[in-house]
Amino acid sequence: MNSYSGHSGLLTDLYQLTMAAGYIETGFDARATFELFVRNLPPRRSYLAAAGLEQALDYLQNVRFTADEIAYLQRHPAFRNISAQFFDYLAQFRFAGDVWAMLEGTMFFPGEPLLRVTAPITQAQIVETYLLATLNFQTLIASKAARVVTAARGRNVIEFGTRRAHGIESGVLAARAAYIGGCQGTSNVMAGHRFGIPTFGTQAHSWIMAHHEEEEAFRKFLEIFPDHAVLLVDTYDVRAAVEKIIAMGRKPRGVRLDSGDLAADSVWVRRRLDEVGWNDVEIFASGDLDEDRIEALLAGGARIDGFGVGTALSTSADAPALGVIYKLVELERGGEVHNAAKLSRAKITYPGRKQVYRFAGAGGKFSEDIIALEEERFPEAEALLVPVLRAGQRVLPATDLGEARRRCLEGLDRLPERVVDPRTGDAAAYPVRYSSRLDALLDEVRRRVERAARI
Amino acid sequence: MNSYSGHSGLLTDLYQLTMAAGYIETGFDARATFELFVRNLPPRRSYLAAAGLEQALDYLQNVRFTADEIAYLQRHPAFRNISAQFFDYLAQFRFAGDVWAMLEGTMFFPGEPLLRVTAPITQAQIVETYLLATLNFQTLIASKAARVVTAARGRNVIEFGTRRAHGIESGVLAARAAYIGGCQGTSNVMAGHRFGIPTFGTQAHSWIMAHHEEEEAFRKFLEIFPDHAVLLVDTYDVRAAVEKIIAMGRKPRGVRLDSGDLAADSVWVRRRLDEVGWNDVEIFASGDLDEDRIEALLAGGARIDGFGVGTALSTSADAPALGVIYKLVELERGGEVHNAAKLSRAKITYPGRKQVYRFAGAGGKFSEDIIALEEERFPEAEALLVPVLRAGQRVLPATDLGEARRRCLEGLDRLPERVVDPRTGDAAAYPVRYSSRLDALLDEVRRRVERAARI
Repeated sequence: MNSYSGHSGLLTDLYQLTMAAGYIETGFDARATFELFVRNLPPRRSYLAAAGLEQALDYLQNVRFTADEIAYLQRHPAFRNISAQFFDYLAQFRFAGDVWAMLEGTMFFPGEPLLRVTAPITQAQIVETYLLATLNFQTLIASKAARVVTAARGRNVIEFGTRRAHGIESGVLAARAAYIGGCQGTSNVMAGHRFGIPTFGTQAHSWIMAHHEEEEAFRKFLEIFPDHAVLLVDTYDVRAAVEKIIAMGRKPRGVRLDSGDLAADSVWVRRRLDEVGWNDVEIFASGDLDEDRIEALLAGGARIDGFGVGTALSTSADAPALGVIYKLVELERGGEVHNAAKLSRAKITYPGRKQVYRFAGAGGKFSEDIIALEEERFPEAEALLVPVLRAGQRVLPATDLGEARRRCLEGLDRLPERVVDPRTGDAAAYPVRYSSRLDALLDEVRRRVERAARI
Repeated sequence: MNSYSGHSGLLTDLYQLTMAAGYIETGFDARATFELFVRNLPPRRSYLAAAGLEQALDYLQNVRFTADEIAYLQRHPAFRNISAQFFDYLAQFRFAGDVWAMLEGTMFFPGEPLLRVTAPITQAQIVETYLLATLNFQTLIASKAARVVTAARGRNVIEFGTRRAHGIESGVLAARAAYIGGCQGTSNVMAGHRFGIPTFGTQAHSWIMAHHEEEEAFRKFLEIFPDHAVLLVDTYDVRAAVEKIIAMGRKPRGVRLDSGDLAADSVWVRRRLDEVGWNDVEIFASGDLDEDRIEALLAGGARIDGFGVGTALSTSADAPALGVIYKLVELERGGEVHNAAKLSRAKITYPGRKQVYRFAGAGGKFSEDIIALEEERFPEAEALLVPVLRAGQRVLPATDLGEARRRCLEGLDRLPERVVDPRTGDAAAYPVRYSSRLDALLDEVRRRVERAARI
């Protein structure tokens, strides 16, 4: 069955459940803080746009193990020696932790926690996989969309990539994330229905090919969709198709070019449309577009009003994975607080609960981020992590997608040009540093671990 | 809400529904055949392994438009002038077409239809997007998995990539596809529950870090999981960790290396384990692995028994999209049959309903594929497309995943070595050609379209 609950406790890696069994069986009682962040930017990325929080919170509030799911685990060889106590725990399982997170559409950088979970360690562990998969993916797509939208310099970008997405549900979520990243809308109807995103699209080559004559295909479509018809003109010959439409004397809303020399064709089509006074008929382009091709088309003088972008957007094809990780940074056990830091060769994780402070300079431009301990205070800066769940209860209203999209577009505007422009894409042009207290804490933890290793 | 029905008619692109409205409104009554195939292989791919059919068929049998979904479309500006007839059509919508497809795990090549739909054109159009997204993705992952499994030369490969997949549901389906592609199992528990795939995994760095001493973390885990504990030894220092385990005198099932010099560490660990007579303790490796790193590790003498592969498998990171397309190849209307072919610049689609015939030579090795018209007969060859739905009713039993996996592994065995070896990856080493009747039909359609264009 393709239908499923997105709240199942089994939507996780097996080791989360074996570790959970381990904590329950040994009576290991601790409150852990995990932070979710990236160590490095993917290739060709100079910033990231946060997305996916709404789906993450919906999961955290509703994650459950059904009787059937627990029975599956009881039959699993890994749990052969596990007592009933653990399965009872799963039957009662609720996520009751505190969560702080960046709002969707917020721009962020490596090392900055996108989300922070403080909860009984077993709970914090079970939810890891879902949180990573959810925030990872939508952030990846929103960040790619922001690049494409920047390259389009104010022209509309519509997400067209469901068919090339990583499964149908991935297509729906990609449409959501692309909208946060600044797209005008999507072709995905479910994304329109579920999230209220504007949806676009009119006809495919098959409509043209199914009719005996291209002209008949255009005429019928214009009759049925007098206000919305964007006619696809490249099935046989772009210029012949445009001449047929002009000869019919019936003005479409727009025309779409999906192949061929988009720059030259768009210039020719614009001139012909203008010659007959159809200055408001839009030219829409699609077909393996991405930020580089859009940039090149516009630099080459293409007369295109809107872009339909598919595969590049729905899969972030040039950088299809984001190394989001979830690291233990603090452990409270028996009244003591331990700062945890992983010190395994070359992979340093700063310990302690963190906050990200963003400073703005003259003209409202962002000037610097400081990653600090939660209790540090920088009154002149904006604190990017806000409380979203307290003891498992939601304290943040549902994401307003339009607001998330504006936040992202505003971020593009307030970051330095050299960071945001896909041609320069210079992450180093925006300073992000750790507070001196965090650096001192890391040194302290490092010394403690080295001492322990010598024993 | 994260829960959803994977059978909604809204899981499609808007233009499928505007074209559907167009066909209904104009009383365009035709039976269309669409074929789903790829024009080209993605970078570094020399064959593809079919996957995703089960989810595609489940959708085709169950796709519906709910009242709520139809009300959404009625409010949509694109459908402002559309009559009640169309919305009534959607309320009654059932897919009642015929479908032929390649069984999951079948190896295939560019130009070969992976699936063929013959149905009233409106139905065939509405289901396009879902079919593409579903077959596209799972085929992409199964094909990547087959490369990784080949590189591992008989050692186990476990799919570990849910956290980096394109959303949580994508992670579940990636696990399924990776299993078809030859993996031994997955870390994804839902994939185990839903599809019966073996699941693996024991502990993460956080388990080690949460305990005061690494030794305590190991000891507790061994007590709870005496038969299944694979201990993670790279949190602080691999060799020190292995010495601690040996000193405890309690044999784990295996150890896992997740960072550092996997080749050198595995050789050292193997020697130490063998010295104490623990020859059956397995060494498992993970951490940004793919077919290239596995190949290099084994070539470099690494002593690794199993590989956990994450991002590379769940996202097919080096080639994250598959250009699966769905093209109109035939139209029956008013008793006449028209062969359709798209002749727009450089994108040729062969017309007519096709079948793929696979020939085998001495020793059972595959020798050649011929893409032919359905009615052509090659008795000595295997016909790869089999009937799966007749008038919307399933005629194929549910996919047996184990059988699909064996079919893929057998395909790897029967294709030429130069095609299958990831180091050579030479697609040209396997001949695929069109039948002479298909070539003749293409010429005929080409001449007809050129005549029509001159009129």
